[in-house]
Formats: sequence, C-alpha cells, structure tokens
Amino acid sequence: MNAIGSDLRVGPAADRAELYALGRQLRVDSVRSSTAAGSGHPTSSMSAADLMAVLMARHLRYDWDDPANPANDHLIMSKGHASPLLYSMFRAAGVVGEDELINTYRRAGRLQGHPTPILPWVDVATGSLGQGIGYGVGVALAGRKLDRLPYRVWVLCGDSEMAEGSVWEALDKAAFYELDNFTVILDVNRLGQTGATEYGWDVERYAHRVTAFGCRSLTIDGHDVDEITAAYEAAALADRPTVIIARTVKGSGFSEVENKPDWHGKPLPEDMAQRAIDELGGVTAIHVRGPLPEASPPTNSGRASQHSASVDPPRFDLGEEIPTRKAYGQALAALGARPDVVALDGEVGNSTYSELFEKDHPDRFFQMYIAEQQMIATAVGLSVRGYRPFAATFAAFLTRAHDFLRMAAISQADLCIAGSHCGVEIGADGPSQMGLEDIAMMRAIQGSTVLYPSDATSAAALTLTMADLPGISYLRTTRGGYPVLYGPDERFPVGGCKVWGERPDDVVTLVGAGVTLHECLSAATELARQGIATRVVDLYSVKPIDAESLSRCAQQTRLLMVVEDHHPEGGIGEAVAAVLAKGRPGARFAHLAVDSLPGSASTTQALDAAGINAGHIVRAVLAELDPKRQADTEE
Amino acid sequence: MNAIGSDLRVGPAADRAELYALGRQLRVDSVRSSTAAGSGHPTSSMSAADLMAVLMARHLRYDWDDPANPANDHLIMSKGHASPLLYSMFRAAGVVGEDELINTYRRAGRLQGHPTPILPWVDVATGSLGQGIGYGVGVALAGRKLDRLPYRVWVLCGDSEMAEGSVWEALDKAAFYELDNFTVILDVNRLGQTGATEYGWDVERYAHRVTAFGCRSLTIDGHDVDEITAAYEAAALADRPTVIIARTVKGSGFSEVENKPDWHGKPLPEDMAQRAIDELGGVTAIHVRGPLPEASPPTNSGRASQHSASVDPPRFDLGEEIPTRKAYGQALAALGARPDVVALDGEVGNSTYSELFEKDHPDRFFQMYIAEQQMIATAVGLSVRGYRPFAATFAAFLTRAHDFLRMAAISQADLCIAGSHCGVEIGADGPSQMGLEDIAMMRAIQGSTVLYPSDATSAAALTLTMADLPGISYLRTTRGGYPVLYGPDERFPVGGCKVWGERPDDVVTLVGAGVTLHECLSAATELARQGIATRVVDLYSVKPIDAESLSRCAQQTRLLMVVEDHHPEGGIGEAVAAVLAKGRPGARFAHLAVDSLPGSASTTQALDAAGINAGHIVRAVLAELDPKRQADTEE
Repeated sequence: MNAIGSDLRVGPAADRAELYALGRQLRVDSVRSSTAAGSGHPTSSMSAADLMAVLMARHLRYDWDDPANPANDHLIMSKGHASPLLYSMFRAAGVVGEDELINTYRRAGRLQGHPTPILPWVDVATGSLGQGIGYGVGVALAGRKLDRLPYRVWVLCGDSEMAEGSVWEALDKAAFYELDNFTVILDVNRLGQTGATEYGWDVERYAHRVTAFGCRSLTIDGHDVDEITAAYEAAALADRPTVIIARTVKGSGFSEVENKPDWHGKPLPEDMAQRAIDELGGVTAIHVRGPLPEASPPTNSGRASQHSASVDPPRFDLGEEIPTRKAYGQALAALGARPDVVALDGEVGNSTYSELFEKDHPDRFFQMYIAEQQMIATAVGLSVRGYRPFAATFAAFLTRAHDFLRMAAISQADLCIAGSHCGVEIGADGPSQMGLEDIAMMRAIQGSTVLYPSDATSAAALTLTMADLPGISYLRTTRGGYPVLYGPDERFPVGGCKVWGERPDDVVTLVGAGVTLHECLSAATELARQGIATRVVDLYSVKPIDAESLSRCAQQTRLLMVVEDHHPEGGIGEAVAAVLAKGRPGARFAHLAVDSLPGSASTTQALDAAGINAGHIVRAVLAELDPKRQADTEE
Repeated sequence: MNAIGSDLRVGPAADRAELYALGRQLRVDSVRSSTAAGSGHPTSSMSAADLMAVLMARHLRYDWDDPANPANDHLIMSKGHASPLLYSMFRAAGVVGEDELINTYRRAGRLQGHPTPILPWVDVATGSLGQGIGYGVGVALAGRKLDRLPYRVWVLCGDSEMAEGSVWEALDKAAFYELDNFTVILDVNRLGQTGATEYGWDVERYAHRVTAFGCRSLTIDGHDVDEITAAYEAAALADRPTVIIARTVKGSGFSEVENKPDWHGKPLPEDMAQRAIDELGGVTAIHVRGPLPEASPPTNSGRASQHSASVDPPRFDLGEEIPTRKAYGQALAALGARPDVVALDGEVGNSTYSELFEKDHPDRFFQMYIAEQQMIATAVGLSVRGYRPFAATFAAFLTRAHDFLRMAAISQADLCIAGSHCGVEIGADGPSQMGLEDIAMMRAIQGSTVLYPSDATSAAALTLTMADLPGISYLRTTRGGYPVLYGPDERFPVGGCKVWGERPDDVVTLVGAGVTLHECLSAATELARQGIATRVVDLYSVKPIDAESLSRCAQQTRLLMVVEDHHPEGGIGEAVAAVLAKGRPGARFAHLAVDSLPGSASTTQALDAAGINAGHIVRAVLAELDPKRQADTEE
C-alpha cells in the first residue's frame, strides 16, 4: 500500500485540499478496518467522513492528550455503527495506532463493534439508535447549567434514527433548556439497513421538524467542506441548539458502492477494498490536531467537589407511618448538601417526592416532563461530567426507559433511580400504574444494585448509600404510609437483610420487602399465636442478596416463603429460589406473588385479591405445613 | 339532587344548548363518580367534556348496542386518567347505569381507575401516557389498509403526553401511512400533574410540530361547540390525519378549581362537589345516541376469515445449519396463508427475516422503521381488529418497547413477538446489540409465553404455535446457524421440553436453549467420554416451564446445571431454580450465565469469555462433582 501524505499534519488552518484528503483517509481507514475485521459498517462511515474531517480539524476543541480536561468539547457518535469512522479519527489524532485499528477492531480489546467508554475519548456507549442526541443533551446541560464551562457538544447521528421518538424527546429538551452549546450533525445518507429510509433525501422535512421542535436547522451538502465549515461556524454562534442536516451519499468516495442499497453493515471483500483504497488515493497517515479547549477556568464542576459536604439525613420515629417514597425525597433533599448530586423527574415529583429536592435545590433539579427516556438519557449525560443523578418516576413508567437503562450499564454510568408506586398496593389507579415488572427489569441490568426498603428509616439510609454506589442502583418505593420499623442508628449495608424474631426453634421463615414485609410481620404474629414460630426476613437488598442469611434460615426452618408485590418472574422470589437451589437441601420454598391481572380496588382489597396479604400468608403457611400435603409431595 | 333534563334525548341533530347541557352533565358525573370513589381526576375530565359531548352526539358513528360491529368508529382515551369522563359518556349512552358509575368506580368491577378492555366499549388499556395515539394508528391502519372499512379512529389525548417521544413516532406513522381516517383531539388544558405543562397554552407550537410531522392541524377553542363541530367535520373530510388542538380550561365549569394548579388527580371533597354540581346545573340524565355506523359491508376483516387457510410449514434436514431467526421468517411467510396474520418490523427485516413475509405478503407487512414503541403499538391496534400481528426486531431493542408490552398485556392483546440476535452469541457487534435482558423482560409480562428454540425445526414449529396463543408470546431467536436437531414431524407443545440421552444412571442434567443447548450437547459428549453420564434438556418452552420433567431430572441426577446466554437474573436459570426449590430435595443446582459486561469478539471467543461454552460447562460440572467440594458444602 502506498502512503501518500504520510507526513502531512493538519490543524485548524487546514485548507480545502487538506480537509478533503483527511476525509479520504477516514474513508480508507474505515474500509481497511472493517474489511480486516470481516464485519462492520464502512459505507455508513464513508457518508459522514467529510463531516468528521472538518469537525476534528477545525472545530472540535479537544485535547487528545488529556481526554479528562473539563473544557474539552464532546463528540457523541449516536450512529454507533459508524465506529470505523470514529476509530479512524482516533488514528488520525494519533491516539490509536495503525496496528490496533487494523488488527483488533471488532475482535478483542477496546475497539468494539459499537463505541463504549472503555476508550478514554468516548463518553457513552452507543449502538442502540436514537440515544446519542439524548445523552448529548445531558452533557450540554451540565456544561451550560452546572459546570458553566464553554465546551460544546457535537452529536453525529443518522437519518434512520430520526424515526425514534427518543430523538424528539431529546431535541425538545435541548430547546427547552436553551442549549446553545449543542449541535447535532445529521448524516442524511438516504439508505438504512433494509433500503431507503422513511424520507430519503427529503432534508426539508427534517428541517421543518427540527425547527418545530425549537432548534435551528441548517441544510447543507455534507460533502462540501466549505458548506460544512460555514455550518459549524454558524452553530457555534447560534442562540439555540442547532441541527445541521447534511445531505450525504452512503459509501461516498467509492463508486462501486456509492448510494447503493444492500451495502449496509457489510465490509468490502478484500479485492473491492483494494479498489476502494485505490480510488480514494491510497493509504495515508495524515495527523490531525484541531483546536485545543480554552484554558480550563475554575468551575462549578461537581466532580471536583464531590463528597465535600456532610449530609444530615432525615430521622423518623418508630411507628410513625411514612411512605418510603417520601423518605426517599427527604433523604434526597438532604443529599443536596453534596454539590455533585442532581435530581430529575418525569413530571410526577409530587408523587415521587423529588419535589423536596427541587424546592431546596432548584438549580440542580431538572424537570424532564413526561419523557422517561430522556430523563434517563439526561442522567447519563450528567454523569459523564461527574454528577450523581437521581432520577425518579413511577416504577411502572421506568419500563419506558428500559433500553436507555440497559445502555447506561454498558456506558458504565453511575446512576441512582427511584421507582415509586410499586405493585398492587396502589389500589385504585389500576394496573396501568402498578409497577409489577420493575424488579425483574432492574435486576437484569448488568452490574445493577436493587434496593427495596420497607420503612422510612431504611429508605432514607439506602438513598444515602446509593449516592456512592457504582453502576445503576435502583430504589423501589411504596405509595402508602407504613410504620417506621427501625431506629435512626440502624445500618443497612448493601447485600444485607434484617431478620425479625429469629429463634433456634423457628418453623417458618417469611421473606418480604415493602408492603409485604408488613404483611409478613402480621402473619408471623398470627402464626405464633397458633404455635408456629416464625421469623421474618426484611430483604431490603434484593441485589446483591444476602445468600448467607437466607441459607441459614433455610437450614434452620422447615418452610421458607417469599411474599412479593411483583409478578412471580424475576423478582424477589426467584432471586431467593436461586440462592436456595444452589445450597444444601433445606426448607421447602414457597412463593406468593401477583400472578394474575389486577384491577382497581382499595389497597386492602388489592393485596387480598393478589393473595399477598397476611391472611393469605397464614393460610398458605398452614397448607404448606399440613402433614398430608407433605406426605403427598414426598412420596 | 335535582334532575333537570332527565328526559332529554340528544342525537346527531343536537343543538348548541343541548350540547352544552351534555357537556355539563359529563362534568357533573365526572365530579360525582370521583368524589364517591375518593380518588380520580375530575378536573382533567372537565377540560375535555365539551369535546366529548360534541363527539358522541354528532360525530362518533357507534352502535352502543353492538360494540363488536366492525363498522363502528373507535374512541381511544389516551389520557386514561380522564376515565370519569369516559364512564360518564357511557352513562349518557345508557350502557353504564347510575349505580355502577357512582358506587363502583375505582373500587371494584369494570370501571377501573384507568380504562381497560374489560369494558366492551374500550379497545385498549390506557393510563401510561403517550400510548393512545400509537394504538389508534394501528386501528386506523387496519381500517384503511386491511379491513377497508369506513370507520374513523378518534383519540383523546392530553397536552402533557406530547412530551413522550412515542407520540411523535405515532404521528409520523399516521402521516406516512396516509391515515385520513385518524383524528387526534388534543386537550390543551395547560396544567399537568405538578403544575404548568412544558408549553402551556402555546397551541401554535403544537400546531407547528404536528404539521411538521405530516398531519393536518386545527386550532380551536375546546369549549365552543361550534368550533368543535367544525373541526370534527373538517377532520372527516381531510386527506390526511388530523390533530385538533383544543385550548381548554382544566376543571372548566366549576369556578373554584378552573385553571388552578394543585387540583390534578384529586376528587373534590363532598361540599365542593355539591357546589360544583350546583354551579353546573345539577344532576341530569340526558340520554345520547349519536350517529350509527354505516351498514357493515362484506370486508377483508381478518377476524372473520381467521384459520381458514392451511399452512405449509418449512421443513429442514437433520444436521443442516440454519439460524433459528431464518426458520422464524420462513414459518412466518408460510403462516401468511392465514389472512389474519400480519407482520411488522423495525427496519431490520433482513436480520430478523421478517423480509420473507414481506416478500410474499407485502399488503400485510408494515414497515415501522426504527420505532420499536410504535411497532408494538401498531401491533396492538391491529389486534383490536382481530388480526394476529407478528412483530420482530433485535431482542436487545425490544427493551425500547417494554412499557408498550406491559400495557399490551393489560389490554389482553394477542401478539406474537420475535427477538433476534440474542446474547453474546452475536459476537463482533458488541454489547449494545446483545439481547441479554429479554427473557427477564418477557417472562415478567403478565400472561406471557416465552419460547426459545435451539434449531430450525423447533423454531418453525413454535412460530406456527404462537399464532394461536393467547396473550403476548415471545420467540427468542439466534443469529448464527446451528445444526437441525429434530425431524419435521417432531412436536413441540408449549410447556414441554426435550430430554436428550436420558438414562436411569445419569449423574448430570444440563439445561440449555438456543446456542447453549448445542454447547450442552457437546459438553455431554465430553462428560460421557470421561465416564459421567449426562442428559441434556432442551428447554424450548421457558414460560410455561416443564416443571414435571425438570423435577424428574432433579430427582434422578446429582447435579442440574442451567447454561444460558442471558444475564443471570430473570432468565432460564432462575425459572428452573424456582421449580427445583419448590420441589423435593434433589440434584444440586448450578447456573452458568453472562455475569459480566461482554465485549466484541468472535462468537467462539464471546461464548468462552462469558463462560458458557462446552469447555466451561465440562469444567464447571467436574468442579461441582468434586468430592472435596461436596464435602465442603455439606459439612
């Protein structure tokens, strides 16, 4: 392979020829890396090559030697499948070598099929389309409203992504929060995975929509470096978020694939790749260093000041009836003493009690209205800048953001999530408002922590604990007020549990959390009255789970029954069952959960109808202990 | 209470005074029902009362005595919390009585806090905001493209909902499919749950957005029956979907709460309720019957012709290497012989193999582009009209539609969902594309069926089976090709499993599905070579699960190990653990799953790195059977 221009160095003063040469190099490297990998998306990379060449040479104010510089601009590749382009940019910047690009892409190491923050120059994982704009909004919000830093956020996205509603949630919030530091570069290459996109090259349609959503739109030829430059300059001066709508050609630069369908997500075969490289002028080693960020001023950045304040948590009196959701809000407000803590809500802050934080710390509260996907996306973006976001809505509506939570885990973001109004306990509002799947969803998030307090003391303590947990942590809270069970000095380590009334001769272990813990305690009293010694486990830490205590209970009692206000699958019951099944044979396991479709009712009726109240627990225990039944199953 | 106008009958010829009187009655009944219930959303009902009064008297062509009439118009209450208004309409239509409305609302029976299809006049459950428009698009699509029926779909939604991206996915598809039979009535009452909405009474902003998304917008005073009438008439004549943007007043008609924040979701106390009723003119019993639908013509309706065709399923040769996703596509194309079967995809039909159906049955294939929420919403809407939708995308991206799937279960919709590219098996594309949470998500959906075939024969058979299952059924498919294991006449009953190599002296049971079944079979061969007799369970039916066969294996072997390409939580492992924990003490349970964050790699490397390939299985079995280890854990 030839190496024309190997010694070329390109910077902010790059001329047109140099920019075009850089665009060609990014294409060549996209072709080379994907062909070597045997998979990947070269044509999706090629359409955006000129857009990225101009950006990195002239406009992205980024210190490649110091990716942690708080004044750096941010580039988010929403079209994460164009990773060959991104990694080719890294090669051009000199931070990824020829060998790594060609010989590791998509196979092992850090140059993954879609970008992840394993790489120091990548803020967030992308690859689920329609998410990058939302994350960018969060990062831009941190810059404008919290850090007060002059960095700019650039998001490259594809036209196919514009079909995702999340894109419009994001643009709406970009405009609502007047993020003039936010620019989306829309690579309209007309072709998606299966053929033409919904609107092809109808760039005016995109412009119309973007404008309607409160952003400035600029329509350009995405292969004309002068038009690109002018657009970036205009974006930097705009008084609102800008969306640059660039008409591009998929596979541009290689005539055999240019603007042809059926080349999505396919590497060029070796022979074609060589012809592409030749047509593009051969392999080059142009080295690019664009503008540096402004010298970093002293800032409000939360990262620096994290943990600097002492937090005065709320205290509750034993027996007082306080909803755990309210204790969450009170603890969150107290956590506001820490300047890195920020809060978000989906326009239900008077239900989740996020409003208590909003009242005390309005400058660090972000109302996301009813846009749960963007609520999580904003949280992830804020976490990129070192803030500790607490995001809350009804547990049921967190399902709306499932894909964002999944991707946040891949981004290895540290987020605290609270889901209120869990289970049939809410009663009258009916099944649409009952979170009955949230434990399953949150437990299956990679690296997550799932907490489910039963009283205000533990809810407040766990809220405080969450603020320092890595990964995605989730607090499940309950609508109704139930008695405070623990004194203010009780500790609630993650991975622990509380065992009530443990005695060596116990016959039964009941395991509950939230409202069912209170039902279990009532049931235990009744069972004791009937001569059946019963202990109760408060499983406030669902993941990680206290396998040791549960195993001990399974060894010491004859029956271990889990009672939960959740569907039977993926919740507390199965988490406990997995512990017991792995251990030595012990107590018989039984499980009461919400197995059928609930309806509107009072809380009392709803718990009864679902079969998870004290009366049902007592009856189920008696049935399980019935010697006749025992004989039947053991024959 | 007085009863002015008790004998009034209102129909399509209603005059202005009668329409206003009806609007007042709907308000009075909304107040009465919610006050009696002690909860509910009267003020959100009152803002839309005039809009609904005009609709039901003059424009909604609906036979209240025959809700199953295929020519009936459809009314979907996207703002499901305005259920008092809907139920008050039902009282006005004479299908719900005074006693049921006042004495059961939100407490028991069918008048739930948010509407569900327990009621014969309700198509879909609502209450998770931003969903009703999407469902309406599906119903309208059935009418325009499949049934060829002249019905019109009306959706009432609130202004707060417009923050949900799903609304814009829906309007986009309404315009894309040129649904001129589709009208959205946007009740802009300016106040959400926690205060002013994002854009208050800025109706022009909504109009701008709606127009940009390809719909016609009409801006009116939502309390002027002449303007309302004109808008409905214009909508009926429009050549595209219409969004009527109605400026309204929350709590309108009762001066003490009109346009006041802090009255969201609160019933009026008894004394206020009485003053409201007095101010609104007292309790009335106006009886409304609006226009009837056109006489129903012979139609294409799938409901009638369901099951009428014989399906010729694909057949595969033993040992042939076919991806299960391809077998899905082939079976789906064959199912196309049934006229009720329709298919949808999220612009990945060449990956999911939905394209095979599209090719054979283009008139019954609906491209949803990359809009997974709307894909499920459309499917639900099509199911309302009796069609059997099959919707497919990558398993990972189904998480985007989690809330819609949850609500579809409450709607008791019959849907078939296929998620392809599950697990780390996909390798090179990396974690963003790996479905590792989908089993947990789909199992926790109320009433769901979860199927996970390991070869093409079972994949095709289960696809056919799904077409007649009630509720939400899910087929998890794999990217790579693996050998066909079963002959064409093998049967795969839901709730069953296949046990390979079962002998009385087996020591080990391995349980797998999909790619891990093939790894289990390899491991069993190796273990047998080492003298450890091993049987393998193909757990193609994950929910319901074959508890009997699994319990038998647990009794007959010393170790039962589940191996799955999914995170450990909520997947196959925990489903099996729950079975074992409930049974008699038997085999030790062990579980191999994807416990850490995977990266890009080849399939071989990815399975190895996740610890779920044959080599890891063999080593894990040997470690579990190690007598030293046994002694340790049993001491």
